Amino acid sequence: MTDTTTRAVATRMPERMHADRETIDAILDEALFCHLSYVVDGEPRLIPTMHVRIGDALYLHGSTGSRPLRMAREGLPVCVAVTIADGLVFSKAQFHHSMNYRSVIAHGIARVVTDETLKQEFLSRLVDRIATGRTNDCRPPTRKEYASTTLLELPLTEVAAKIRNGPPSEEPEDENLPYWNGILPLHTVAGEPISLEPKVPIPSYVKSWSPAQAGDGRPDVGRSGARS
Amino acid sequence: MTDTTTRAVATRMPERMHADRETIDAILDEALFCHLSYVVDGEPRLIPTMHVRIGDALYLHGSTGSRPLRMAREGLPVCVAVTIADGLVFSKAQFHHSMNYRSVIAHGIARVVTDETLKQEFLSRLVDRIATGRTNDCRPPTRKEYASTTLLELPLTEVAAKIRNGPPSEEPEDENLPYWNGILPLHTVAGEPISLEPKVPIPSYVKSWSPAQAGDGRPDVGRSGARS
Repeated sequence: MTDTTTRAVATRMPERMHADRETIDAILDEALFCHLSYVVDGEPRLIPTMHVRIGDALYLHGSTGSRPLRMAREGLPVCVAVTIADGLVFSKAQFHHSMNYRSVIAHGIARVVTDETLKQEFLSRLVDRIATGRTNDCRPPTRKEYASTTLLELPLTEVAAKIRNGPPSEEPEDENLPYWNGILPLHTVAGEPISLEPKVPIPSYVKSWSPAQAGDGRPDVGRSGARS
Repeated sequence: MTDTTTRAVATRMPERMHADRETIDAILDEALFCHLSYVVDGEPRLIPTMHVRIGDALYLHGSTGSRPLRMAREGLPVCVAVTIADGLVFSKAQFHHSMNYRSVIAHGIARVVTDETLKQEFLSRLVDRIATGRTNDCRPPTRKEYASTTLLELPLTEVAAKIRNGPPSEEPEDENLPYWNGILPLHTVAGEPISLEPKVPIPSYVKSWSPAQAGDGRPDVGRSGARS
């Protein structure tokens, strides 16, 4: 029997671990995609996919024919990770170079969702995560499209965030070495939108896009769109 | 026995798969971090870590005490994925919204590297991937630092890239709907460097940083730094 407490809590760098759901949810809601891991014949598999958090569960997008989603009909042990790179960390010592990041890792049993209302909410939120408000500015799914969307649900019961933040580690004896040290922040930004339909003006939610605005896809929560 | 051909080749969207090493290597060399998956007691685990490709193998960074690295002394079945988000894809239909991305998934048996020359090359390249040329502008590792670096080697024998590129899918009957469709390109960019040592000027490789320049960390390959 696995000791589940050891799955979500890292044994290395415990000071980087965060178990509070507010921190965890903010990372899950900002990350635009995740990696889903599962086991086939004792061997690990990984796929990138898009996710939406709704309350206390993570919902993962798939197509009805994909292997993990077929396997998940009876409950599939999975591990899901999201990682956001926040900065490159330059130490005076080669050895202490690092990256600032925010990641979340969730373990549990994923199950296929068949409830159509939940599928509707998932697809709306997924599209509103791409850009807030987009759901109301495109054609809604047909019943056939809902039917061909398979959805995995993973309860967020065994989940933790791991965050590296702040300055580089330095050895005291390196203090006076003549090398620059510091942090180079990294950001995800949008370029110029590419319009396929030049007759239709580019919507404001496309022009003003930012990763934090993508958020949890609730157009009614009054997000400012600004990134702190 | 697992049919290994089914591990690296996706059963869904085969038109998105690319097996040529030039395509695969470019994605591995641009991605700043990866996700490493392995199995413990039949259950999947995932950790984000940094990688360097050297020739036909992927090298993954760890600390001597970390679980997968201890397990890998005798060879650990792993799956490694990198994913770069290239753009948000807006379709006239909610259902066809998507993301443009480039990902690589590699399967195989990872082993711990003990060769010190290879560890030296790994650490140099890792730091030069953070910023080209940095290795020659910081303190080299000590023997103790090399000793506390554990390195996993994964031969790139079973590896494939999956790429989504180009415009959204549209249904013919949606053609005249009054919704904007197109692509919003995404880029990783650097913000203003944060200096801890204001007496030392910010190096040019920090000021001119770009993800493509981070590349494979070889300062001698004459990369332009421009992203195509």
